[in-house]
Amino acid sequence: MNNIIDFRLRPPLRGFLNANFSRVKIIERFTGQLGFRQADSVRELSIDKLLAEMDEAGIEKGVVVGRNTTTIGAVPNTDVAQIALDYPERFVAVASVDPVNRASAMAQIAEARSLGMKMINLEPGLGADPMHFDDRRLYPIYAYCEDAGMPVILMGGGNTGPNISYSNPEHIDTVLHDFPKLTVISAHGNWPWAQQIIHVAFRRENLYLSPDMYLHHLPGMDDYIKAANSFLAERFLFATAYPLTPVVEYTKWFTSLPIRPDAMEMILRGNAERLLAVDLK
Amino acid sequence: MNNIIDFRLRPPLRGFLNANFSRVKIIERFTGQLGFRQADSVRELSIDKLLAEMDEAGIEKGVVVGRNTTTIGAVPNTDVAQIALDYPERFVAVASVDPVNRASAMAQIAEARSLGMKMINLEPGLGADPMHFDDRRLYPIYAYCEDAGMPVILMGGGNTGPNISYSNPEHIDTVLHDFPKLTVISAHGNWPWAQQIIHVAFRRENLYLSPDMYLHHLPGMDDYIKAANSFLAERFLFATAYPLTPVVEYTKWFTSLPIRPDAMEMILRGNAERLLAVDLK
Amino acid sequence: MNNIIDFRLRPPLRGFLNANFSRVKIIERFTGQLGFRQADSVRELSIDKLLAEMDEAGIEKGVVVGRNTTTIGAVPNTDVAQIALDYPERFVAVASVDPVNRASAMAQIAEARSLGMKMINLEPGLGADPMHFDDRRLYPIYAYCEDAGMPVILMGGGNTGPNISYSNPEHIDTVLHDFPKLTVISAHGNWPWAQQIIHVAFRRENLYLSPDMYLHHLPGMDDYIKAANSFLAERFLFATAYPLTPVVEYTKWFTSLPIRPDAMEMILRGNAERLLAVDLK
Repeated sequence: MNNIIDFRLRPPLRGFLNANFSRVKIIERFTGQLGFRQADSVRELSIDKLLAEMDEAGIEKGVVVGRNTTTIGAVPNTDVAQIALDYPERFVAVASVDPVNRASAMAQIAEARSLGMKMINLEPGLGADPMHFDDRRLYPIYAYCEDAGMPVILMGGGNTGPNISYSNPEHIDTVLHDFPKLTVISAHGNWPWAQQIIHVAFRRENLYLSPDMYLHHLPGMDDYIKAANSFLAERFLFATAYPLTPVVEYTKWFTSLPIRPDAMEMILRGNAERLLAVDLK
Repeated sequence: MNNIIDFRLRPPLRGFLNANFSRVKIIERFTGQLGFRQADSVRELSIDKLLAEMDEAGIEKGVVVGRNTTTIGAVPNTDVAQIALDYPERFVAVASVDPVNRASAMAQIAEARSLGMKMINLEPGLGADPMHFDDRRLYPIYAYCEDAGMPVILMGGGNTGPNISYSNPEHIDTVLHDFPKLTVISAHGNWPWAQQIIHVAFRRENLYLSPDMYLHHLPGMDDYIKAANSFLAERFLFATAYPLTPVVEYTKWFTSLPIRPDAMEMILRGNAERLLAVDLK
Repeated sequence: MNNIIDFRLRPPLRGFLNANFSRVKIIERFTGQLGFRQADSVRELSIDKLLAEMDEAGIEKGVVVGRNTTTIGAVPNTDVAQIALDYPERFVAVASVDPVNRASAMAQIAEARSLGMKMINLEPGLGADPMHFDDRRLYPIYAYCEDAGMPVILMGGGNTGPNISYSNPEHIDTVLHDFPKLTVISAHGNWPWAQQIIHVAFRRENLYLSPDMYLHHLPGMDDYIKAANSFLAERFLFATAYPLTPVVEYTKWFTSLPIRPDAMEMILRGNAERLLAVDLK
């Protein structure tokens, strides 16, 4: 395939250079622990190299998810939006909202909408005062997004808070129950709680999973693949989490997984396309 | 084998028509998500078709587990008992008790005993005021059952409460510790907590597991099979959870699993037979 | 290999005869449930047979981890130290500290150091007043060990407390976060939370895992092996948990696992050697 949509990819441009790309040691450690070599585009901070790597991988578009945290950096949403304006064929912008202050969070969402963004990303475990996903302070935001038909990406797995309780599926399950019409995408797929989150996805039809980098030869891999081959085929999203993995090697590996062809096609493009085509109220 | 005992099977008869069989959409969604086609007997609400399907599957007897919940329906225990009286060769009755009010729960147990039932089923997460399994309000019931030698089925996995914390093995583990002589059967096998519940079963010899429908190509399947082939062979129970899966296809699939023959025989019949033969005090 | 280091092995000597070896029924049940036959050396309480079995297994040295609990026995640390003095080529001594009383715990650590021991073992879930690993009362001990460069073994998996919440990785994760320079070895590898603890080890570089007996054909086995073949190769420790498994059969089985040769070598010796060579401050 050469029209893949990568649901989590941050290019070496604008504010990302001071956020995701400023943490070179962390990137190196992650990429190495995952068993990958760092891509040239990361080492050289080269957008041209990244675009060439995306071409080689068959990735048509990357979903550029912003960042707005106290603990691991922030990128202005205007920067994220500008990247998509500068490369309309290659990047889609998703705003990131700091939920600590309700009024400010709502203003950020309004700004994101005015900039043409249709989806927001929340990383509430990474603020100065970390919140679990079912923290009451997030509920006004979820309510607004449910009413507006605006999907929410929750960075739901891996290092999503000070400790592993922040990825425990109990919290996201409660949100999905309380907001049954809110579409939630769990970036990192609530890894490492693979068995548990797949039950949640079985029960809650408003949850999408994207285990991305944590799928690569890590525990849970077989569980996610089992789900991708059955009921989750329509709600599994492909993502490289670039710059944490190299897009060429990750995509080559992912497309070789034992996932049946029709499911693989939905995962690599169809599901993402449907989500990105949402009309906001 | 043609003398299989199915430990969770609800026929389209009497009160079940207004409870389990009234939720056709839920059944369809489950059956489909599990990768099965709905059985003719479900679509036609036909007991004759079900008996023929049981014959074809090699299921001699089904354990008819009642239901007594606020959120997903109820079946009078007199109905459940009558089904076993009407089909003594095919069905065994298990009463279901609503634990919210202690005095009423004890009265229901007394009624169940007078109707000849030797086992009760509890679904405390599905009441109007959901309880975890180690809720103090359940302790008088457990104490009575331990003293009487009466096994208790806890609907321990899947959608057993408002969120995934209700299947978290921490709660059932506490009960098993506090009532070491109480025999507990976890229907749905505390899925999706496969790795965790198998530890609990390793430690607590009073726990039986029956992952039933959630075993079918879902995460945890290999873990349950590993346990079935080792220490859990004597405490694993076969069940279709009919009408949620079709008995013919489920049984055909289950009997093809890589479980060693002597363990398979205990799982399909011996373990259930031993439990059903209990003498109450 | 014939120079394996077994990171958890208790010989039938001195105080162990009144502690681990006094619980013959428990040992038998465990060994049997794990699918092993009891070793001759256990049945006969024979150190000579154990040494011969270690030779046959290729185990050069066993790390003799003491015990100091209210619920499952205690061995004086002087006994543990004496065993290593009597068999300097075969045994290394690790003190066990009862953490209930802070002053007494610090005195035990001082005694252990004066006896030449460089590592301590904590089993805080097995006291009269069980503690989770992140109980505040343990923090002075962790602080001392972090400052002294003294590794701590936490009996982190299996029956490590009154219920399964005591092995829940949330608690050890918090400790690893709060004491980033403290080296922690999780004996029993926080089994059964295999998927979860491997995430914790991915994130926290100060954690070593040793799933030992709970690896043997139990759920989680494939997850631990996956991790052993990737980032965890340098922090996975081999252990038999003798007398709970027979050293010959366990080692034969372990060395046949699909772990790549360079990782296997680190696991069987290199990682343990590095830990045991620590210089205390």
